[in-house]
Amino acid sequence: NRSYTITLLPGDGIGPEVISVAKDVLLLSGSIEGIKYEFHEKLLGGAALDATGVPLPDETLSVAKESDAVLLGAIGGYKWDKNEKHLKPETGLLQLREGLKVFANLRPATVFPQLVDASTLKREVAEGVDLMVVRELTGGIYFGKPRGFGTNENGEETGYNTEIYAAHEIDRIARFAFEVARKRGGKLCSVDKANVLEASMFWRKRVLALAQEYPDIELSHMYVDNAAMQLIRNPKQFDTVVTNNIFGDILSDEASMITGSIGMLPSASLGDSGPGLFEPIHGSAPDIAGQDKANPFATVLSAAMLLRYGLGEDKAADRIEKAVLDTLNRGFRTADIYSSGTKLVGCKQLGEEILKSV
Amino acid sequence: NRSYTITLLPGDGIGPEVISVAKDVLLLSGSIEGIKYEFHEKLLGGAALDATGVPLPDETLSVAKESDAVLLGAIGGYKWDKNEKHLKPETGLLQLREGLKVFANLRPATVFPQLVDASTLKREVAEGVDLMVVRELTGGIYFGKPRGFGTNENGEETGYNTEIYAAHEIDRIARFAFEVARKRGGKLCSVDKANVLEASMFWRKRVLALAQEYPDIELSHMYVDNAAMQLIRNPKQFDTVVTNNIFGDILSDEASMITGSIGMLPSASLGDSGPGLFEPIHGSAPDIAGQDKANPFATVLSAAMLLRYGLGEDKAADRIEKAVLDTLNRGFRTADIYSSGTKLVGCKQLGEEILKSV
Ligand SMILES: CC(C)[C@H](C(=O)O)[C@@H](O)C(=O)O
Ligand SMILES: CC(C)[C@H](C(=O)O)[C@@H](O)C(=O)O
Repeated sequence: NRSYTITLLPGDGIGPEVISVAKDVLLLSGSIEGIKYEFHEKLLGGAALDATGVPLPDETLSVAKESDAVLLGAIGGYKWDKNEKHLKPETGLLQLREGLKVFANLRPATVFPQLVDASTLKREVAEGVDLMVVRELTGGIYFGKPRGFGTNENGEETGYNTEIYAAHEIDRIARFAFEVARKRGGKLCSVDKANVLEASMFWRKRVLALAQEYPDIELSHMYVDNAAMQLIRNPKQFDTVVTNNIFGDILSDEASMITGSIGMLPSASLGDSGPGLFEPIHGSAPDIAGQDKANPFATVLSAAMLLRYGLGEDKAADRIEKAVLDTLNRGFRTADIYSSGTKLVGCKQLGEEILKSV
Repeated sequence: NRSYTITLLPGDGIGPEVISVAKDVLLLSGSIEGIKYEFHEKLLGGAALDATGVPLPDETLSVAKESDAVLLGAIGGYKWDKNEKHLKPETGLLQLREGLKVFANLRPATVFPQLVDASTLKREVAEGVDLMVVRELTGGIYFGKPRGFGTNENGEETGYNTEIYAAHEIDRIARFAFEVARKRGGKLCSVDKANVLEASMFWRKRVLALAQEYPDIELSHMYVDNAAMQLIRNPKQFDTVVTNNIFGDILSDEASMITGSIGMLPSASLGDSGPGLFEPIHGSAPDIAGQDKANPFATVLSAAMLLRYGLGEDKAADRIEKAVLDTLNRGFRTADIYSSGTKLVGCKQLGEEILKSV
């Protein structure tokens, strides 16, 4: 019997509802595959702010660091939107990423055949899309210094940030992406703005140098503005995409919306060692929180990524992914992915249906 | 008889072909409306690099500054892609924008009813899209200092840029955008990343303060990652969008691709005074350069924007826009917008057809 400690961070909005489903799915699939879990539920984001005054309590970070993997629901909400920066739920998430040193954010954008019509893209464009965005997560303009508010030479107020990458930061995310591409279709597209930004020129130079070690991977480079277009024009041209923190934030959200499956998409954030952080790509949806309307599929699939990438428990991961597809095939849908002819259920009932399929 | 001097910058790739058509259209519509032009054709981008060793020769900038408006074809190409930064065609364009102080870049994303099926978005999503991206063009990370390559405290190489906005830079682009929104649907969406970046927090604060002066405009704020999604989910929710230089680069390209009309879209870059810069949003398409395959519509429509926003010659602008619609309605298409049942023609012949409709 293998045994793991998992930190659960329900967070805000619909977070607690979807985490509750994912926990049940982990437990049941674990019991079948001979895996035991010890769960530690901790505060993050707005929930932590309300209870402790900070968005990432020390206890949350230390428990998370000690565990084998971290599963997060969602954070944020209108209530805290006007908070100062150090008191924003988002700041807690950024501190958690930094604290866990999870520099590689994996965001699959996959079209579920059962949901292809939910895409606003034409069927023939959306069908079969299966790409992976590898986003650098602990560097760039999100963390670069100097940053803040100042006064310029004319005595005028300013706001500023620094986009900066050091060699090892680019090398490790590029290496990670080459490895991901190798396990996928063997194609890697590095996205930058090297026609304008020095940070991007340096990015491209390092990626090109590393490419020597991956002669089997077909490497291409694309400017970020063009990538934003190509994702819409023909998303199937992409296999694996690697890019910096801010471009990855924008492009991975764009890619996920293209699939029409946004309530379905998980993500994994990984470092060199230590626990990974797993979370659905959707937000905390405060408008439907507590109404049993949330779609738990993305969090359940994040639990599958946790098993696969975090614990190396591929069989349990397969089992969960199969259960999700099976539940979809049996026609169960939450409101966000409902279409006529399918069965509309709430978050809890969908959870029960997934359990039946595990 | 009104008389204007226009600087023509054909640039690279298909630039000369599309500028030639636009010039003829300006001349004919001008002769009907009682407008005279003096054209000065100058070098920019790769063409300037090859002839003079710099991407923006002093003469080009000084002639452009002295003229009433500047019409640009396109710049760039594989040939110069590996050049050092100060020898890139793109650098010439950035220097031109800076030199002309055109801080406001207007990028309409309009679906032409005749071309709606060219969009990869479903007809019901794309039909009727008519939004305007107002992009800040002479500030932010494109121009911010410090920038360059360095060494960090661990002796490691780095590449870095600075995203910075001063109060007056935000105020003038926001004011510009509020005015644009007032002439359009009365809705302005300001896009930023104020949950993470200080430069965005400052942006949002200034936009909010200015909103007091525009009580008739419905102002909203959106994070850039969400904007990238919403443009795909439901582009019709947007009327006027205002954002910084880099987000505007990405989102305006995304918006234009959504329309399926990318070969049709013009742009205008305007300052407080002095000549505006008008150019199609498409690139230099080196692969089809010199083959009489280019689509001149976007450049012709840029000439119409030049008349409307640059010279205040609305009647001549109307005439050109009508001629474009008429030519579309008569079924003439270049290869990029061809569909069965329409008439495939080259760049030159399309130019002649537009002239017949002027
Ligand atoms: C909430 C926010 C700080 C975060 C980010 O920008 O990274 C989110 O958009 C994401 O992509 O996970
Ligand atoms: C060519 C490049 C420098 C330019 C930009 O990034 O501004 C282009 O993409 C544009 O949007 O006009």
